[in-house]
Amino acid sequence: MRASGTLAPEWKVAQWFNTQQPLQLADLRGKVVVMHAFQMLCPGCVVHGLPQTQKIYNVFDANEVVVVGLHTVFEHHEVMTPQALEVFIHEYRYTFPIGVDQPDGQSGLPLTMRAYGMRGTPSLILIDHKGRLRKHSFGRDDDIQVGADIATLVSEAKAAPLAEAENASGGDGCDEDKCTA
Amino acid sequence: MRASGTLAPEWKVAQWFNTQQPLQLADLRGKVVVMHAFQMLCPGCVVHGLPQTQKIYNVFDANEVVVVGLHTVFEHHEVMTPQALEVFIHEYRYTFPIGVDQPDGQSGLPLTMRAYGMRGTPSLILIDHKGRLRKHSFGRDDDIQVGADIATLVSEAKAAPLAEAENASGGDGCDEDKCTA
Amino acid sequence: MRASGTLAPEWKVAQWFNTQQPLQLADLRGKVVVMHAFQMLCPGCVVHGLPQTQKIYNVFDANEVVVVGLHTVFEHHEVMTPQALEVFIHEYRYTFPIGVDQPDGQSGLPLTMRAYGMRGTPSLILIDHKGRLRKHSFGRDDDIQVGADIATLVSEAKAAPLAEAENASGGDGCDEDKCTA
Amino acid sequence: MRASGTLAPEWKVAQWFNTQQPLQLADLRGKVVVMHAFQMLCPGCVVHGLPQTQKIYNVFDANEVVVVGLHTVFEHHEVMTPQALEVFIHEYRYTFPIGVDQPDGQSGLPLTMRAYGMRGTPSLILIDHKGRLRKHSFGRDDDIQVGADIATLVSEAKAAPLAEAENASGGDGCDEDKCTA
Repeated sequence: MRASGTLAPEWKVAQWFNTQQPLQLADLRGKVVVMHAFQMLCPGCVVHGLPQTQKIYNVFDANEVVVVGLHTVFEHHEVMTPQALEVFIHEYRYTFPIGVDQPDGQSGLPLTMRAYGMRGTPSLILIDHKGRLRKHSFGRDDDIQVGADIATLVSEAKAAPLAEAENASGGDGCDEDKCTA
Repeated sequence: MRASGTLAPEWKVAQWFNTQQPLQLADLRGKVVVMHAFQMLCPGCVVHGLPQTQKIYNVFDANEVVVVGLHTVFEHHEVMTPQALEVFIHEYRYTFPIGVDQPDGQSGLPLTMRAYGMRGTPSLILIDHKGRLRKHSFGRDDDIQVGADIATLVSEAKAAPLAEAENASGGDGCDEDKCTA
Repeated sequence: MRASGTLAPEWKVAQWFNTQQPLQLADLRGKVVVMHAFQMLCPGCVVHGLPQTQKIYNVFDANEVVVVGLHTVFEHHEVMTPQALEVFIHEYRYTFPIGVDQPDGQSGLPLTMRAYGMRGTPSLILIDHKGRLRKHSFGRDDDIQVGADIATLVSEAKAAPLAEAENASGGDGCDEDKCTA
Repeated sequence: MRASGTLAPEWKVAQWFNTQQPLQLADLRGKVVVMHAFQMLCPGCVVHGLPQTQKIYNVFDANEVVVVGLHTVFEHHEVMTPQALEVFIHEYRYTFPIGVDQPDGQSGLPLTMRAYGMRGTPSLILIDHKGRLRKHSFGRDDDIQVGADIATLVSEAKAAPLAEAENASGGDGCDEDKCTA
């Protein structure tokens, strides 16, 4: 797991659902980013993580908080395909953008999962308006705590908005493979 | 939906999980049969129906009540494959026998679902020790009611056990109370 | 805790709510009796036991199953008064008959609680149609199991109804203070 | 219901539990105050409001957020006495400070409830570090939303701490942002 405060690595997404155009983390400077990593056949994700993520998406202002689901398939790749994910999203009526974490081509950990050093699913990652990792948890999170964590980052963003140039730069220090704070 | 009291049609199962040998409804005369029809990507099944079925399996004596899950895929056949179902069963740790309802070969309703006239998933079907349909519900069932319904059929079975010959016959015809298939 | 199968002692109730006339256990031969012992300030009763009892009352046929709540105050007598209980019943909208277990006059265990040897609240007691104790549990009970237990006793009652004389006798073996099976 | 942004009226408390010395709202300038108004026999309070309040108390830093329960008895005064409340708090194991809203002496609305214009119980009131009303809701609140609301006020407090003099003054008047009581 990457140290809190370091710059969050760009995600690598093979395919998106629930969004008309691909999302780039680098383009989201200035906003708080909530990333929920899940697998469609992970019971803890289905029962707790994904409903919580949908509530986060419903509660916060989309101009301040971007919510992204990431399908980080690290086992049973043959059945948790993008095609199956699409049906899953449809049947459960999730409305937030969901990306498919880029497979490594060898049925191992997908690329974003590996870059963030995630331990498994569900994982919750909060990224502040400057693109820095601020929370990375594995397992079940309390709703009140998560709501508070996100709001704290929103307040930071409002208190110290990025300068135009900083915003436009897309995040200093983070090249394709490795990021430094 | 078939009328209550009529003989329950034999199920047609393409493949079984959680049982070493195929189950035939006809072989189960003398026992109460609980059949839970579901789809692995049906939220109501995952959140309510399947956990309830697992509890039924845990609560009742296996010598008196046979619990069977039936994967009645009537939509999105391409992703709710037997291979995907196997992973689903493994990840959710279901331990009761689960069969794959025989596809019709044309991506329509599978054969058992059609024979029983099911409206969708989850559906719960109770069959008495003489092989007769006794309950057929669609949607969410109350735990207390379901527990009572099953126990009532168990009591019937104990009060009026089948004669040896009747048991061995495999049950078609259902004479005593005038059932017709 | 009294042995299962022995005759259930008559309850001693100081005051009734939700019934126009007092209920006597001896008058209920022929029916299954569900007795839920609780205290209005017992969290396990409020969160699990009482809602379960209300559901039992709603699910079963009143001609077959009599549901009774029993307020067995064994601590904090000064605040869990009948007057307070009345408000509690009103606010939580319980509709099944509830009796106040007769105090011993010394702030100890009330008389019915003592006669049944209850360990605390919530306690659930099932009495069959012949007036015999059949289940006595302490703590949280599973809905499916409880539904099944009650239905089993209902089936017994239907299979072997009491003779007229037996029904009218009010229960052999159980005098005012002690009961023998 | 008082307008949001106005100075929150001082509470009038007859008796405190779970705190060694009485709390005065005026003394809490600089901290966020969460006030949960409840009645011990109000089902919505027992099932949702009070457990949520306990979680808030557990999640936030006591140096930043003061959580207070307020027993606002507006009906059935004769049974929801301070003595009964004490038992209730003990049995449910609530650990946050709880005050008894000062009765009006005529079995009407208690004084704090009246001053805040509360509609009933449960009511949730958030007061910022300058003593201003910021949220006043009636009924059930979503955990994520409440966590976010409180954290937003905490961030405000950190961003614009009170001057020493302002803090010491006890806060009536609330100049900077033109609050009037």
